[in-house]
Amino acid sequence: MGNPTRVLVWNEGRHEKTNEAVSKIYPRGMHAVIAEGLKAAGGFTVQTATLDDSEHGLTEQILAETDVLTWWGHIAHGEVKDEIVARVHKRVLEGMGLIVLHSGHVSKIFRALMGTSGALRWREASERERLWNIEPSHPIAAGIGDYIELPNEEMYGERFDIPAPEQVVFISWFEGGEVFRSGCCWQRGHGRIFYFRPGHETYPTYYHPQVRLVLANACRWAAPRLFAAHSCPNTPPLAKIEKRDIDIAHVPHLSRG
Amino acid sequence: MGNPTRVLVWNEGRHEKTNEAVSKIYPRGMHAVIAEGLKAAGGFTVQTATLDDSEHGLTEQILAETDVLTWWGHIAHGEVKDEIVARVHKRVLEGMGLIVLHSGHVSKIFRALMGTSGALRWREASERERLWNIEPSHPIAAGIGDYIELPNEEMYGERFDIPAPEQVVFISWFEGGEVFRSGCCWQRGHGRIFYFRPGHETYPTYYHPQVRLVLANACRWAAPRLFAAHSCPNTPPLAKIEKRDIDIAHVPHLSRG
Amino acid sequence: MGNPTRVLVWNEGRHEKTNEAVSKIYPRGMHAVIAEGLKAAGGFTVQTATLDDSEHGLTEQILAETDVLTWWGHIAHGEVKDEIVARVHKRVLEGMGLIVLHSGHVSKIFRALMGTSGALRWREASERERLWNIEPSHPIAAGIGDYIELPNEEMYGERFDIPAPEQVVFISWFEGGEVFRSGCCWQRGHGRIFYFRPGHETYPTYYHPQVRLVLANACRWAAPRLFAAHSCPNTPPLAKIEKRDIDIAHVPHLSRG
Amino acid sequence: MGNPTRVLVWNEGRHEKTNEAVSKIYPRGMHAVIAEGLKAAGGFTVQTATLDDSEHGLTEQILAETDVLTWWGHIAHGEVKDEIVARVHKRVLEGMGLIVLHSGHVSKIFRALMGTSGALRWREASERERLWNIEPSHPIAAGIGDYIELPNEEMYGERFDIPAPEQVVFISWFEGGEVFRSGCCWQRGHGRIFYFRPGHETYPTYYHPQVRLVLANACRWAAPRLFAAHSCPNTPPLAKIEKRDIDIAHVPHLSRG
Repeated sequence: MGNPTRVLVWNEGRHEKTNEAVSKIYPRGMHAVIAEGLKAAGGFTVQTATLDDSEHGLTEQILAETDVLTWWGHIAHGEVKDEIVARVHKRVLEGMGLIVLHSGHVSKIFRALMGTSGALRWREASERERLWNIEPSHPIAAGIGDYIELPNEEMYGERFDIPAPEQVVFISWFEGGEVFRSGCCWQRGHGRIFYFRPGHETYPTYYHPQVRLVLANACRWAAPRLFAAHSCPNTPPLAKIEKRDIDIAHVPHLSRG
Repeated sequence: MGNPTRVLVWNEGRHEKTNEAVSKIYPRGMHAVIAEGLKAAGGFTVQTATLDDSEHGLTEQILAETDVLTWWGHIAHGEVKDEIVARVHKRVLEGMGLIVLHSGHVSKIFRALMGTSGALRWREASERERLWNIEPSHPIAAGIGDYIELPNEEMYGERFDIPAPEQVVFISWFEGGEVFRSGCCWQRGHGRIFYFRPGHETYPTYYHPQVRLVLANACRWAAPRLFAAHSCPNTPPLAKIEKRDIDIAHVPHLSRG
Repeated sequence: MGNPTRVLVWNEGRHEKTNEAVSKIYPRGMHAVIAEGLKAAGGFTVQTATLDDSEHGLTEQILAETDVLTWWGHIAHGEVKDEIVARVHKRVLEGMGLIVLHSGHVSKIFRALMGTSGALRWREASERERLWNIEPSHPIAAGIGDYIELPNEEMYGERFDIPAPEQVVFISWFEGGEVFRSGCCWQRGHGRIFYFRPGHETYPTYYHPQVRLVLANACRWAAPRLFAAHSCPNTPPLAKIEKRDIDIAHVPHLSRG
Repeated sequence: MGNPTRVLVWNEGRHEKTNEAVSKIYPRGMHAVIAEGLKAAGGFTVQTATLDDSEHGLTEQILAETDVLTWWGHIAHGEVKDEIVARVHKRVLEGMGLIVLHSGHVSKIFRALMGTSGALRWREASERERLWNIEPSHPIAAGIGDYIELPNEEMYGERFDIPAPEQVVFISWFEGGEVFRSGCCWQRGHGRIFYFRPGHETYPTYYHPQVRLVLANACRWAAPRLFAAHSCPNTPPLAKIEKRDIDIAHVPHLSRG
């Protein structure tokens, strides 16, 4: 595709307003930093939207012009309106890519697409995380070496309650003793979905060059190959079908009566 | 497990009341015939429930005593209450097996677990269907030979909008020119799910001995190995984690300002 | 990748020499016709090679300059030398794409990569085949509509003894009553593998525009994202590991003695 | 199945003869200790065999009486005869279960079934390993809690060059900074295969009660549901197929000539 991929970076945007530590790291919001990284990577047109925008910034019109949506949410999952979740869900099934970030593991949209709880174990201890690259030939891992090392992150540990991923690209090691499937791919309808673990709001994770590379790779990978609605067409046969009698004579319970 | 598997056979139960052709074949309802087949197979205690029962026959109490739920619905999917769908969904994630039958492909519970539309193409022409057994060593295919042949069935054709199944056990051939993934397995949470295509209400499909064998096999396969709720525990580390400073000095956008 | 993908079209090339019906359809060999289709699609440099070439046309040098290999063989699988199969196998694991065609289902290279027998049922009756496109958003299905219809083909029927494919793109319907997983994707090492069913030597299948489109799509999909050898490195730890005694005191069978 | 599962525990058996540290832990060989664990679990008849037995203890007769084979090898993979590997391979495809242990990741039989190199990174530093149970409802994880902790093991780290497993049951965390898919399931032909990572010869791993439980669970899971040879039958159609002319008139390259 010669055209740039149209990415919409969505952010809950609440921590930045209420937590000084977060606003120091992300003064214009996480979405601004994620968007910057994608713009720098090239090949994208990037817009942003937040929970507090009208219709959460996810109008029919905006979604119709979005190829890939990235999603960061945490403390206000419950405030995302169900009809807007349904709208995003429909658009993913029709082909839009979705990149779910960090605490989005229990967002309404991720749970609606996965059908599972998204439960996991967690700890905030500013510990070291190594994301091992287990599929170096996967497009999302392009240019990432053996692993990504983050000096400070929140821990997310298994068991992560997700459908078995179609591809696992990264598995995290945590200093405190846990592991996690940190980069997971699925397809639902015609849309591709990638979950990427890192990104706790109190660390500068979205400035990390390898994290940025993963996000750019993921947006390229998730760019739709086609958009198509889903329907249940009534279909004619290849050739006329000769009628056969429905045989209930041999059904014991019926013939008995 | 020495104990019998507790199966609850759920049926919408509307066609039987309004369509004479259906009530001739299933005078006491499809659920009665499906339940009979399971009882005859042995190893199960079998209850039934229908849409018009109080709470659709799916109270907390009843679900707590159910290992595997089978689901047949068609014209009244919309009447199934959302809170009861959520209740069944939660129970599946905790371990209950679910067998989704025929037109259940667009039931609320199936779509909630799959995250997809369940769309497919279809035709009612009383045509021949052959379900090829592509995994003869799968427990659900035990005792089924090369294929099951049904002289008269409704056609369901690809593309079927489902997540790629974890195992495909049967693929159907239809006289009129279509194919369909007719026996599909997934796990969600701790629960096992099996979708089985045949079972249009105007044909005596649930009397067919091989169809009955598949249903009994599927209920055995889907019997829970454990029941467990999902939660997000805060977890202590293996050993005390030494503090490292959060390095924002090297973040270009921050150090610039 | 701006550079054209380097495709090597490999053909056993024996039927064309001994069977007049085949040589009428493929006077310069199937490989010539497959190569023509790829050249017409654009984005490829295309070479050909046959069994009777020196080293089967698969020297170290030639393989080192090949991104994607297509493989057609049938009556002379046994004549392909084991050391050359091993050479191709190694190259696939390092990243080269492999497109296995029709009767290649029991070729040495396909069985070596799959680990299974490749067994299936078959019939030569010039019957109609419809390949249903079950993943319209998969790159290999780009531009293919609902199905490909071939008026005359050999039948291949399930059960096909292959590892469960990572993606199934096409499922065939045959006039005589069978189904088949006709377009199947796997990854082995860093290499992508696609099996595509049609292509019996007595039919002009490789002239069919949709078949040609699938082959071009498949060669693009299988183009390597990286080439890397596989090794078992001895790896230093993140930090010095403190020694712990090996505790055999509590091993009952040892402490008893 | 009421009958006990017939397990054959195979061991290379060389370290025990040449390395005093190993012979101290496994004076009668690892196979004796693994066999003991299975016998204690119940439901099995257990035999053992070693590399130095006639035909490596893997005669046609013995394999014909084996339901599940466990395989430990390390320094003498190359001495296992190719025709015996082929014999075991054929038996797996026909239905026999195979449990591949630790350094068996590069055994001939594992590589033949997987089609990949089995490469990984490694370190011998007597470090702590935690195998996280990521599928607590999988039969192989029955009775295992959140994780298995081994105080001293050899490290195996990703990337592990295997086909994407059909189920991943355990992921290991290592003290030195690595992760590993330590419990992996596949099906090939009608046979089930489980790879289980721990078991370095210089540690008393096969005495560990949770390791023993995994091995017993795995042998139960891998017990064959059916044994069947693979063949390519020529199959009659459902109904006579009317002949259609093979249309080469419209093939441009042919009609031109």
